[in-house]
Amino acid sequence: MQAPVNVAICGLGTVGGGSLRLLRGNADEIARRAGCPIQVVRVATRRPRAIKIDSAISLGSDPFEAVQDDNVQVIVEAMGGFDPAFAVVSQALAGGKQVVTANKALIAERGNELFAIAEENGTTLAYESSVAGGIPIIKNLREGLAANRIEWLAGIINGTGNFILTEMAVGGRTFEDVLAEAQDLGYAEADPSFDVDGIDAAHKLTIMASIAFGIPLQFASTYTEGISTLAPEDLAYAEELGYRIKHLGIARRTDKGVEMRVHPTLISKRWLLSEVSGVDNAVVVKGHAAGSTMYQGPGAGADATASAVVADIIDIARQLRAGGRQPLVPSLHYHGAALDLPVVPIDSIASEYYLRIPVLDRMGVMARITRVLEQHAISIEAVIQKEVHGGSVPIVLLTHAVAESSMNAAIAELAKLADVVGPIGRVRVAPFPAGE
Amino acid sequence: MQAPVNVAICGLGTVGGGSLRLLRGNADEIARRAGCPIQVVRVATRRPRAIKIDSAISLGSDPFEAVQDDNVQVIVEAMGGFDPAFAVVSQALAGGKQVVTANKALIAERGNELFAIAEENGTTLAYESSVAGGIPIIKNLREGLAANRIEWLAGIINGTGNFILTEMAVGGRTFEDVLAEAQDLGYAEADPSFDVDGIDAAHKLTIMASIAFGIPLQFASTYTEGISTLAPEDLAYAEELGYRIKHLGIARRTDKGVEMRVHPTLISKRWLLSEVSGVDNAVVVKGHAAGSTMYQGPGAGADATASAVVADIIDIARQLRAGGRQPLVPSLHYHGAALDLPVVPIDSIASEYYLRIPVLDRMGVMARITRVLEQHAISIEAVIQKEVHGGSVPIVLLTHAVAESSMNAAIAELAKLADVVGPIGRVRVAPFPAGE
Repeated sequence: MQAPVNVAICGLGTVGGGSLRLLRGNADEIARRAGCPIQVVRVATRRPRAIKIDSAISLGSDPFEAVQDDNVQVIVEAMGGFDPAFAVVSQALAGGKQVVTANKALIAERGNELFAIAEENGTTLAYESSVAGGIPIIKNLREGLAANRIEWLAGIINGTGNFILTEMAVGGRTFEDVLAEAQDLGYAEADPSFDVDGIDAAHKLTIMASIAFGIPLQFASTYTEGISTLAPEDLAYAEELGYRIKHLGIARRTDKGVEMRVHPTLISKRWLLSEVSGVDNAVVVKGHAAGSTMYQGPGAGADATASAVVADIIDIARQLRAGGRQPLVPSLHYHGAALDLPVVPIDSIASEYYLRIPVLDRMGVMARITRVLEQHAISIEAVIQKEVHGGSVPIVLLTHAVAESSMNAAIAELAKLADVVGPIGRVRVAPFPAGE
Repeated sequence: MQAPVNVAICGLGTVGGGSLRLLRGNADEIARRAGCPIQVVRVATRRPRAIKIDSAISLGSDPFEAVQDDNVQVIVEAMGGFDPAFAVVSQALAGGKQVVTANKALIAERGNELFAIAEENGTTLAYESSVAGGIPIIKNLREGLAANRIEWLAGIINGTGNFILTEMAVGGRTFEDVLAEAQDLGYAEADPSFDVDGIDAAHKLTIMASIAFGIPLQFASTYTEGISTLAPEDLAYAEELGYRIKHLGIARRTDKGVEMRVHPTLISKRWLLSEVSGVDNAVVVKGHAAGSTMYQGPGAGADATASAVVADIIDIARQLRAGGRQPLVPSLHYHGAALDLPVVPIDSIASEYYLRIPVLDRMGVMARITRVLEQHAISIEAVIQKEVHGGSVPIVLLTHAVAESSMNAAIAELAKLADVVGPIGRVRVAPFPAGE
């Protein structure tokens, strides 16, 4: 057995604490896998924590002490946020240290800079734990599927959102009702916008799209739409039409460029992805050779995230053991320059749509609605119109594919009809057939 | 871009031909991922094939010429079988060449020898394509989940068998009927025993168990039972009880040792794995930290298998590019010795069971059956007894967990009852709760 690899953990919350416990609790197996022991020599935390720190570990509050420590080979950045995480990671890389981070916001928004620093200094910036928790999706994209032209990927990549949609679908409950329960259960933060507005999912999607298509990280170009406007009846109508609604991150390569978008999406019930429920995550990747492969499991939690952090450390240890500081696998996507592919703006995307139009139940209403759709070259695939005697009733439509700009224009015009008595619900249908 | 890596493909059937096509058709993307071009310089095939071979490629019939060729760095063994595959692979490794094989039988039955030769000679024997086609399950077990103590894994790892069971369940058709269709469709060989008797699945399970638990490859100790004795009514009754029947490979670590077994298995319908249908494969891995993660996709086919072969070649190219011949990741499981864990014989395994007992519908039959079960300390969890007036009727039972030896003794005794008028159907229930 070779000399140990020395690790500093910066931040001792869920991720840092979980990683420390995993490295300690499974040390023998990890050493057999890595080819050398992995020992935590330093912990930087600003808050005292309810986790035992061995006396051999230097405990401090300043992560920059770890960055300066010549005895430390690997820095685990588990602080989250940008400040001081960016400075810690960039200085550690500049000093030639190997860095592992779980910080999806940092990678998605500042990754281009950080990967450049890593490459200049011939070292590693690893981030498996930043996407989909314990599911090794980064490794599958960068290595397992490396022979493929990735055509698209689609993921349920926010556990909180999937829990909320699952409960809304199963129990017919409102978004607000389930959100309150998720907050009680600790699945959702007091400020839930990061999860339910899709920002967290957009960070993860940005990272996966960059790897899949060999493009720079472009978080600002990822279209993001949340789930808070969905009504329980939307999930019920979707079910009736043969679909489920999931909050999907979709990255797709078309002739026009790359689509990157996070929004509620109808997916066919015949698709295995539609069965992924509760707080689980899952990503389907369509490779031109491998076909559709799916990766599913717990997307969050201390242990699952630590599994990914420590897998990164083991990769690094294997590499250091072989005498190399520089990673064999490019940190992001390619050896060499990224591809310069345009990002398709959401207005230019073509999609099938689910529409829920609340109307007054009176003579000729369907004709007036279909006329507006027809004027925008939108044809109808399926309709649900429940018989209600008097008052307001929803007309539910599934359309054939149309450009988003046309759909927006049609919806604006529909909203002006005297028949229409409330906001029009609109959900995109997944742009790939079931079983593809 | 660095110098190309030179590959020889031995065998030009489904796997070899698919790999050649993939390397040619996606050469640019593969070079960007690998950091260097990957070029096929030699093809050895004994049969002329309907695939175009570039004139720059040396075409011959003798794979040993590729082994002897100093210009070749990587040998792809795509011949299948043991002779001459074993000699080709072992001589290539002894000569310091990197080897990629899709040959599950070779790895499962002769892998211990071959990995020793690879290690002695500081070279690589890669075999991602030997298990589950395009799904990178080997990489996930060896790398993505390397921080975990693997508690168990369970896989649908034979597409032919899963197609047959899916069709039997959906259409209520007999095994023989669906098998004939599978043969017509080209999903099953003229001699289907390799697939339907579980030998193919046992090869794959043996390989996964070895990686997961750090034990030597022990194909001879893997218990194997096929699907040909299942009746369509078994699948229907299972459904009624909340289960589906899948031909699972199960590897599990218990206090008594390691279980390795391939047999028809009842799994809860609440389990995502139960939804994997048709020719698809899927493997669920339970890690102590990552929890249950599932890997699903096409388990066979030229393109999917080639995706895995070429991923292995890219891994090797990345390593050669960095100047290393020796793999960073141990070829099988550990740096250093395998663990010496006993394999639990099937008789000693405890399981819940599904039983279908064809009886004459007469007074007291249920009491006589439960008495026999009671005498063997077998308690009943659920019963289905359809009302039939006169004649033979099946009693369907779900039992609590009991040792297989007790169950066998009970079945032998039941078979002697005058009430019992046909062979007793017996299927094990998966030894892990849904959602674990």
